[in-house]
Amino acid sequence: MSKNITACVIIIGNEILSGRTQDLNLAYIGRRCDELGIRLNESRVIPDVEATIVTTVNACRAVFTYVFTTGGIGPTHDDISSAAIARAFGKKMQRRKDAVAAMERHYRPGKLNEASLNMADLPEDAILIDNPISGAPGFQLENVFVLAGVPIIMQAMFEGIVERLTGGAPMLTAKVATNLGESTVAGELAKLQQSYADVSIGSYPYFRQGKFGVNLVMRSTDAARLKQLADDIKTMIRKLQGEVLE
Amino acid sequence: MSKNITACVIIIGNEILSGRTQDLNLAYIGRRCDELGIRLNESRVIPDVEATIVTTVNACRAVFTYVFTTGGIGPTHDDISSAAIARAFGKKMQRRKDAVAAMERHYRPGKLNEASLNMADLPEDAILIDNPISGAPGFQLENVFVLAGVPIIMQAMFEGIVERLTGGAPMLTAKVATNLGESTVAGELAKLQQSYADVSIGSYPYFRQGKFGVNLVMRSTDAARLKQLADDIKTMIRKLQGEVLE
Repeated sequence: MSKNITACVIIIGNEILSGRTQDLNLAYIGRRCDELGIRLNESRVIPDVEATIVTTVNACRAVFTYVFTTGGIGPTHDDISSAAIARAFGKKMQRRKDAVAAMERHYRPGKLNEASLNMADLPEDAILIDNPISGAPGFQLENVFVLAGVPIIMQAMFEGIVERLTGGAPMLTAKVATNLGESTVAGELAKLQQSYADVSIGSYPYFRQGKFGVNLVMRSTDAARLKQLADDIKTMIRKLQGEVLE
Repeated sequence: MSKNITACVIIIGNEILSGRTQDLNLAYIGRRCDELGIRLNESRVIPDVEATIVTTVNACRAVFTYVFTTGGIGPTHDDISSAAIARAFGKKMQRRKDAVAAMERHYRPGKLNEASLNMADLPEDAILIDNPISGAPGFQLENVFVLAGVPIIMQAMFEGIVERLTGGAPMLTAKVATNLGESTVAGELAKLQQSYADVSIGSYPYFRQGKFGVNLVMRSTDAARLKQLADDIKTMIRKLQGEVLE
């Protein structure tokens, strides 16, 4: 995984900020970026406000290798992402024949009304992103990929752009869980982190079924080092008279 | 709800960006902000990297009325939020007697080890935030509230700081669901939005049990206007030969 290939996810939608809808797209893209060897370094959640979308997209596309946006590309009055992102790039919106054709292939005859066709109004020069689920495409402008908000559609669109992304060695993870508290393992764990500077170790307490526990999660592109560290962590847990769980 | 009282949530943690842990804190704080009459206008998810935490906290605290951070205040080597936020404010870290006292009240005798006590190392001048679940406090520096990442602890901390927050009229919501597609309702819905400029209408398609549908969500501080608009939306749905669901 190259440290130089980075990404940011911009989640656009009042419904995420209000807590009415639980975002699931960040976690999906995060897992896929790990697999693709892309470092997902930031995410921003912003409302359906044009000026905010323009500012945020322009700030992020200057910093990260790839920017993925989710949400706000449907046919209703509150779907303003496409026009806002066109504005961020100084592009005109136009009725795209390729988008209309893609939608005509998907919709049943007579079902493609004017409101649907609004979804074919996209920035000039944008490269379409296929939507095999509901027809209306996403689009790519330079390093910005504009995806739907509905998870099943977002995921299908994301899988369609994977071949356009250049990643690196996949990030691998290993997990060891224990019933020991974080404070009990903290000292020894810090020593292990120093010995394994090439692996990042995260310690995540959890509370489930009335019991606290800790997941120790290791991340590295080197499977052998992960295995070695996992063994050392298990030895540490037993030395501290804890149990290795799962 | 005053437009001038705003908030931002900064979610600190590699585990959220990697998709290993599903964030639940944004949705909780979003719902509570609506109830408290505070506009949650942005969220950022960032890794456990000191420079990133410093930059992000300083950028956000200058813009929003309130900033809530979650994660990274535990006792292990990867818990760097407290020190990073001290640095953002130019404050020294110190072993806080009030924090030690709070932890002594919570821990069983003999269980408060040196690693736990690291959680009592907090910025000078910070106001503590009570942690009734596991003892180690969060803290407030000016308009920044530093909370735990584990949802049950974060929620308890948040409820403890509600009295320190000045909000406005609660944001109320109403929902009408329909089996009509977004494109079918788009035209009439846009007209209703124009007639109800004081209510924000969101249209959220969903896909459940093999069926697409749309949730139409209205947000306003005025209950009577919400009721009136909900009735108008139901009339619109029936006029378009759709079903009002739920």
